Amino acid sequence: MDDIEQITEKIRKFRDERDWMQFHDPKNMAVSIILEASELLEHFQWKTTEEVERYARQNHAEIKDEIADIALYLFELADNLDISLINAMEDKLNKNEMRYPVEKAKGKHTKYDKL
Amino acid sequence: MDDIEQITEKIRKFRDERDWMQFHDPKNMAVSIILEASELLEHFQWKTTEEVERYARQNHAEIKDEIADIALYLFELADNLDISLINAMEDKLNKNEMRYPVEKAKGKHTKYDKL
Amino acid sequence: MDDIEQITEKIRKFRDERDWMQFHDPKNMAVSIILEASELLEHFQWKTTEEVERYARQNHAEIKDEIADIALYLFELADNLDISLINAMEDKLNKNEMRYPVEKAKGKHTKYDKL
Amino acid sequence: MDDIEQITEKIRKFRDERDWMQFHDPKNMAVSIILEASELLEHFQWKTTEEVERYARQNHAEIKDEIADIALYLFELADNLDISLINAMEDKLNKNEMRYPVEKAKGKHTKYDKL
Repeated sequence: MDDIEQITEKIRKFRDERDWMQFHDPKNMAVSIILEASELLEHFQWKTTEEVERYARQNHAEIKDEIADIALYLFELADNLDISLINAMEDKLNKNEMRYPVEKAKGKHTKYDKL
Repeated sequence: MDDIEQITEKIRKFRDERDWMQFHDPKNMAVSIILEASELLEHFQWKTTEEVERYARQNHAEIKDEIADIALYLFELADNLDISLINAMEDKLNKNEMRYPVEKAKGKHTKYDKL
Repeated sequence: MDDIEQITEKIRKFRDERDWMQFHDPKNMAVSIILEASELLEHFQWKTTEEVERYARQNHAEIKDEIADIALYLFELADNLDISLINAMEDKLNKNEMRYPVEKAKGKHTKYDKL
Repeated sequence: MDDIEQITEKIRKFRDERDWMQFHDPKNMAVSIILEASELLEHFQWKTTEEVERYARQNHAEIKDEIADIALYLFELADNLDISLINAMEDKLNKNEMRYPVEKAKGKHTKYDKL
């Protein structure tokens, strides 16, 4: 069993011991992912790129926790919808390879539909 | 090499071939995670729980893509900050075990500081 | 001077006394609007519609504060970009009248491009 | 009748002609505010402060529309909860005056609980 399966198994156990599946429909899960992503972003509010880089190094434990919060909900949502996270990511990376050919996209942050 | 390391290696390669690291500071990454989480949530806007469950089954490919978009940025951000995603998730699950003891939290969606 | 102009004048004064314009570029303002919108949404996390209605009545002062936080940044951003908020809203309402004709949109939450 | 009351009256009429109040509970409204705030932020994704300033000038009509979308939901939510937006904003500005005394907060973007 690989590590994504292992942690997903632990998430399921944590949730089911608390009888929380009743709250974890996809809409509530998507809301929770946004809320956790906001907590991550709040650490960087008003800061310049330089301040952000320094802050992230000096507050490593807090940032790690915020990233974990997002991941815990994201892994569970994928599991609830029978989505293999790795498979989904590989498919999307392949799609992005087509959308952003190296020769056109290199060094630019333009969205694919305007490239 | 486990599956998280493998996909992270592919993400790094995709990014570096396009010379995009210059845009991927933690603040921009956190912004992008929120934007992708919003695209996921938009699928469920205005829908009831029943409508959401049906919609998620009938639009599996689209939902899979949205989840992948969030995961691609989240895995890369963790990697950029030298955070082991699995390790971060396990630490946070352990913290949550303390914050939400089964006997107090069972069947309730109350936040730990009000339990 | 109408009430939007009056409160906008107070917001400007509050900001300039603190010399904060240097942080208030449109991107930072948009980030702050999302962060405040998340704080509002967090009050409703995991709750059913019925629980939300009751909660909003019983926690009127907190919800009022969260709505104010979003409005303060939104009014300032409009002002910074020389946008008349009322004018913008009227133009958008007119556009929505065209996008959502009553006979097609009545009682449905379908997005205009799928109506 | 002042301009906030006038536009709120138009929003109410638009909604009720379409029988949409059934969807507009506070949770769905807060979700919609976040989704519109994300559309605003998406315009600035990956851009530097300089690029953002230029972009906002050159795409004034689009930005105006995004700001209007947030405002339309925010004004309606305040109205649905019997909150006077101006009153809420004035109260919050007064609170912020206390939290951020000029002599301590000037030129700094530190949050009040760390000032």
